[in-house]
Order: sequence, then structure tokens, then C-alpha cells
Amino acid sequence: MDGSERGAAERMASVPLASEIEFLTVRVFVAGTRLANERLRPIGLRARSYAALAMACSDVPVRQRDLVALLELDPSQIVALIDELETAGLVRREPDPDDRRSKVVEATERGRKLFARARVVTASAERETFAALSVEERDTLRRLLRKVVFPVGD
Amino acid sequence: MDGSERGAAERMASVPLASEIEFLTVRVFVAGTRLANERLRPIGLRARSYAALAMACSDVPVRQRDLVALLELDPSQIVALIDELETAGLVRREPDPDDRRSKVVEATERGRKLFARARVVTASAERETFAALSVEERDTLRRLLRKVVFPVGD
Repeated sequence: MDGSERGAAERMASVPLASEIEFLTVRVFVAGTRLANERLRPIGLRARSYAALAMACSDVPVRQRDLVALLELDPSQIVALIDELETAGLVRREPDPDDRRSKVVEATERGRKLFARARVVTASAERETFAALSVEERDTLRRLLRKVVFPVGD
Repeated sequence: MDGSERGAAERMASVPLASEIEFLTVRVFVAGTRLANERLRPIGLRARSYAALAMACSDVPVRQRDLVALLELDPSQIVALIDELETAGLVRREPDPDDRRSKVVEATERGRKLFARARVVTASAERETFAALSVEERDTLRRLLRKVVFPVGD
């Protein structure tokens, strides 16, 4: 942030919009995604493909249509994302044991290894994005956001 | 959320990705923007144009290039957004008293009136998006996010 941007940010902090959670969330999201993309680039991922790979690495089988709901992308974007990860040898599509019309997405060994590296990268990016907060404040923020995103079962 | 989406959300809540603040922020941002857009549509605004109008209604003169930094959009997107608001008679561009090469964006009387209505709409959308939180938790979330977005002067 240069001097002129800092001046703009200070002026901005005093306007009512700056207290609207939705607006603040957008700012945090954009800054966080930019940093995550930058840090993930050297290992061939970006925030979106990282999130899809993370799901494919979970112990629960993930269907393509789950990814549509969970990553908030269009079905065509999910297909393109999975294609990309599959071409890179990071995931594979398997028949869904519970539903013949559907496929589940599973990480390959190579995908799991890359994901382990990527988690270190995103954890460090998270610390940087939220550097203004103490560890306790970061945990509180996480807990409150989880409550919003997963209101059931928390 | 139907039964299948709820099931997906419950499975999702248990994977490590679901505790990453960045991922949670994306989810909150997408859901919040969707609701804000839906609620603002009847009065001819959407989240972006609302944010630009909000800035133009503040007591501080706002330059086009401040909006680029503050709304995290490209300069060409800001120009298009201001054009749109100007055509609708909601803002006007005035010469910047501090810098001849620049313009400031000011709300018209009509813009201020529409903004007053829009704030009621977005406040209600915010309550709905963050319905899982108590008033105190919502205030804590707001305070923590402000600290991230405006680390200076808070």
C-alpha cells in the first residue's frame, strides 16, 4: 500500500459502508484470494483448484455435484476444474458407489502429496492476510465464520 | 438448502478446508453478495453499484482512482460503474479541487435518496446472511474484519 492508497483507506474507514460486514468480507476475500493465488502459482495451483483438490483429498467421497454446491461455482466451471486437475494427474473420477449416474472425485497419490505442500503455503498466506489479528482473534473469526457457513452441527 | 445440499454441507463441515478462514470468507462473500444483489434488484442497484453509490454519498470527496483501490475493481470497471450511475442520474463527476487531472464522484439528491432506501435493504440482507450469529457475535465479526481491512487507525 503506498501513501496515496493509505490515505484513501483512512478516508474510507470513516464512511458507513466500511462497517457493513458484507463489504468488509468482500475486501478480505479479494485480498486473501490474490495472496493465495500468488503463493500457490509456483506449485501450479490457484485458490479454486486448491479448494477442489482439498475436497478430493478428504476422507469422504466427493461428487462433482457436491463441489458445485460447496465451491459456489457453476457446473461447467467444476467440470473444467476437475478436467484440469485430472490432466495434471492430481485427481481421478471414479464411479459413485451410491449413485450410478454420478462420479466421485478422488485425489491420486500425486495429488495428496501436492496438497500437503499446498496446505503449508495457504496456512502461511492466511497468517499474512490476517496478520492484524492475534491468534485468539483469528480463532474467534474462524469460529464465527464457520457458524455462518455451517449453521447446523457446530 | 435441500436435503442433498444439507448432506453435502454436513460432510463438508468435517474436512480441513472448512476451517480455513479464506475458504469460509469466500463462502460468506458469495452467499452475501447473492442475497444483496437479489434484494437490491427491485430498486435498480446491485452490490457493486451500491458500494460505489455509498462512497459517492460519503462526506469525503471520492476520486475515481480511490474507488479502484477501495472497491477492488479494475479502472475500466470503475469507469463503467460510474457511467452507469451517472446515466441513471444518481451521481455526477466534478473536477477535483486538489488535482486537475482527476475527477471526484458525488451523489446527486436523487442518488442520496436512493441510497437511503438501499441501506435499509442491505441492512436487512446482512441480518439474514448472518442470522446464525447473535447481535454481539455480529459486532465481534464486524470488529475483527475491520481490523483486517483497516489495520491502521482502528
